[in-house]
Amino acid sequence: MLAARRGWRVLRRCAALPPARAAATRLRVRQALAAREPAGGVAVQGWVRSVRSQKEVLFLHINDGSSLENLQVVADPSLGTSLCCSWFLRDLTFGSAVEVQGKLVKSPHRMQSMELKAETIRVMGPCDTWAFPLKMKERHPLEYVRQFPHLRCRNNTLSSLLRVRSEATAAIHSFFQENGYVHIHTPIITSNDCEGAGELFQIETSNEARESGEKNHFFDVPAFLTVSGQLHLEVMAGAFTHVFTFGPTFRAENSQSRRHLAEFYMVEAELSFTESLQDIMQVMEDLFKTATSTVLSKCPHDVDLFHKYIAPAQKGRLEQMLKKRFVTISYSEAVEILKQASQTFTFKPEWGCDLQTEHEKYLVKHCGEVPLFVINYPYDLKPFYMRDNEDGPQHTVAAIDLLVPGIGELCGGSLREERLPFIESRLQRLGLADAYQWYLDLRKFGSVPHGGFGMGFERYLQCILGVDNIKDVIPFPRFSHSCLL
Amino acid sequence: MLAARRGWRVLRRCAALPPARAAATRLRVRQALAAREPAGGVAVQGWVRSVRSQKEVLFLHINDGSSLENLQVVADPSLGTSLCCSWFLRDLTFGSAVEVQGKLVKSPHRMQSMELKAETIRVMGPCDTWAFPLKMKERHPLEYVRQFPHLRCRNNTLSSLLRVRSEATAAIHSFFQENGYVHIHTPIITSNDCEGAGELFQIETSNEARESGEKNHFFDVPAFLTVSGQLHLEVMAGAFTHVFTFGPTFRAENSQSRRHLAEFYMVEAELSFTESLQDIMQVMEDLFKTATSTVLSKCPHDVDLFHKYIAPAQKGRLEQMLKKRFVTISYSEAVEILKQASQTFTFKPEWGCDLQTEHEKYLVKHCGEVPLFVINYPYDLKPFYMRDNEDGPQHTVAAIDLLVPGIGELCGGSLREERLPFIESRLQRLGLADAYQWYLDLRKFGSVPHGGFGMGFERYLQCILGVDNIKDVIPFPRFSHSCLL
Repeated sequence: MLAARRGWRVLRRCAALPPARAAATRLRVRQALAAREPAGGVAVQGWVRSVRSQKEVLFLHINDGSSLENLQVVADPSLGTSLCCSWFLRDLTFGSAVEVQGKLVKSPHRMQSMELKAETIRVMGPCDTWAFPLKMKERHPLEYVRQFPHLRCRNNTLSSLLRVRSEATAAIHSFFQENGYVHIHTPIITSNDCEGAGELFQIETSNEARESGEKNHFFDVPAFLTVSGQLHLEVMAGAFTHVFTFGPTFRAENSQSRRHLAEFYMVEAELSFTESLQDIMQVMEDLFKTATSTVLSKCPHDVDLFHKYIAPAQKGRLEQMLKKRFVTISYSEAVEILKQASQTFTFKPEWGCDLQTEHEKYLVKHCGEVPLFVINYPYDLKPFYMRDNEDGPQHTVAAIDLLVPGIGELCGGSLREERLPFIESRLQRLGLADAYQWYLDLRKFGSVPHGGFGMGFERYLQCILGVDNIKDVIPFPRFSHSCLL
Repeated sequence: MLAARRGWRVLRRCAALPPARAAATRLRVRQALAAREPAGGVAVQGWVRSVRSQKEVLFLHINDGSSLENLQVVADPSLGTSLCCSWFLRDLTFGSAVEVQGKLVKSPHRMQSMELKAETIRVMGPCDTWAFPLKMKERHPLEYVRQFPHLRCRNNTLSSLLRVRSEATAAIHSFFQENGYVHIHTPIITSNDCEGAGELFQIETSNEARESGEKNHFFDVPAFLTVSGQLHLEVMAGAFTHVFTFGPTFRAENSQSRRHLAEFYMVEAELSFTESLQDIMQVMEDLFKTATSTVLSKCPHDVDLFHKYIAPAQKGRLEQMLKKRFVTISYSEAVEILKQASQTFTFKPEWGCDLQTEHEKYLVKHCGEVPLFVINYPYDLKPFYMRDNEDGPQHTVAAIDLLVPGIGELCGGSLREERLPFIESRLQRLGLADAYQWYLDLRKFGSVPHGGFGMGFERYLQCILGVDNIKDVIPFPRFSHSCLL
């Protein structure tokens, strides 16, 4: 088997064909094959994306999911007569799976470098065109294909999305590994229930759930699905200078928003020996730019599909985001900008109140449609673990939000309160000191200044591709009233 | 900031020091620093691993988590007198966090190439030695440190484990990416409840759970934590030739076994256009050998710690596993071997019965203590999706288990039944045809021969490191009666 990295999977049916594990791109593989092609030819497998039958010649486009590009197969329509021509053609439909044996030749068309001259065609799995919800050469709306979670990956837009998602995942892992971060699998099931108690999923063994509520928990204590790996990463930040996690997180929000899911992925990082927000912001900016550049270079055609058909304005925007330095303003400056805006807002901007989506959008536009860090939020708006700036009695904390054009909040982060007396008194005031004894221990034994951030992975994909609805950037979306498959 | 990939994090306090993002190993960084060291020296941060105070000289070993190796700091004990010498020394304890400013010089000792001659030492976070459960230079048993999930990463064994786990994670991602696999985030929450219904965790919003059972599910239907991403990967195998997933899976088994957790990680892959078990087995063997070789080369000292102190027999065993070809026998052959064994088993070996751990261990030993594929299991022992070998009426299916020395089952896989009539009638007999209509659709529209496997990631770590208890190879173990933090 000649397995090319992003290329066609070609069977080593012919003994003469040497293994070529190291082959890199599809084009190079095909050219290499053409050069070294043995007498018996090659066998290529894929799904039919289009069929054009003319009197003299049959054109097939087939695709194996390795890229958006199809391979053109050219065949003599009489090929099928060894079996029965009419049957053969009838089974060669959009969506069917085929194996084509033949020779790779230079294509006379300028659209493709190579094409496959078929010697035999085998239909491995037919596809009933009438029953199949996807149609040949049709650009189905994303809302339409969302109804078929088990088939929508066979649609061009979704298969491009999934390749981009895969490359982005790899790029994010590489970014952190190359910068010396230790990857940590923070737990999915947790007994921490204090952050935003209303929006948690609770878990039970299925028998218990069927019977009734409180008694005999599997873990002896109530257990929940994680809303963030941060506190567990902070545990690790007491032994490693840089740690990161990239996994699923959950919110039981009863929301039908285009920006929320019940199950979504977060990239979270924690940096020890860090005393300034600037260090954290630098990592956020580097991560965004490095991952995005990698994705753009690894699957340009897939990204182009989105920028061409889904969000034409996004291409230029993204180039701006990559080229320009991100901007930083303080929360107080943000409120001043909003107060002086000619625009009327539904929510009146006021120091001490949360920024609403309308505010975030205005701020990003005001600052030139580039990603915008807003820092130093009011103490009372933010969770207990954020570091007091001591610019007044419990006035502001060293928090960061990263706002991006078209989306709003993409990342949130902060310096963490590493000083035992500060964190202890805050937890006591909140009545949480007992539950967080372990967290206080982290400050008792070798505490260091540290901070970190989390980035919503689906929002990141929405941002670089310009996808309006978050349900279209995850393989199997889960939200209130919907858990298909 | 000079951030070295696996090296010490050194502050750019002195303007003369150029940024060196590309720096590769700790040693190289230190050597480079020594060569280019500016007048003001460097600043190094970490946690104190040992303190040795002599009359003339103070030795500190500090560690920043980037490797098992410590950096030796040499200081004049009078350094602290600018503040108060006795206080200074009292705070310099095992576990405290320090920043040391000074000059990197060649070490006169052959154990290390460089050491840091301290000019100032700042204690960033003290550590109360008496209250801290980890003690200097003590080799705590794994059972002991397991009691402190928030502190155990500061123990050498656990920090080595976490670095190995991180490198193994990266190696597995790379293996698949380099072989053209598309990474898929299969869902954590699923409405599939048919596989092994008794061992599922069910999820509810926390309010619902508090009230009572059945009504008003968040998703409208009962929802569970996934036990495997396989069926969702099969969806993707209808559009991509190679896909993989690497994420958390769950079993609500009430087990205190050394091989089971309620939350654990699975690496799963699915290959389309695959008609032979041999293809799947080749990927399993390649994955094991490639990932393991990468881990051994990336963190040899961390692996050595386990092979030296935890499982001395494992080093030689692992070398054998990497050098030799894996062995393949059929289930029927396995039963024959067991029947002819001189050993008496608790469970009598019989064709049609599951292999027990005692049987697996015997088979691995019988075959020379190398990893062993057992293939073609009885039809009735295996789940509905496995491919009928048609070697008799519902006699065997194309299943594979990979058994490894010391652990037993590491991977399980199979060819999947891609033929609609076969799978349809099997699901009908099981009364599952309605629930799995979507799965039948995959066979109706462009079905292809395919197969795949899953590998338990924690068992893999147990296997390469020789760790007896699975709770010691995951950052935050979850099992019945225990969900700490």
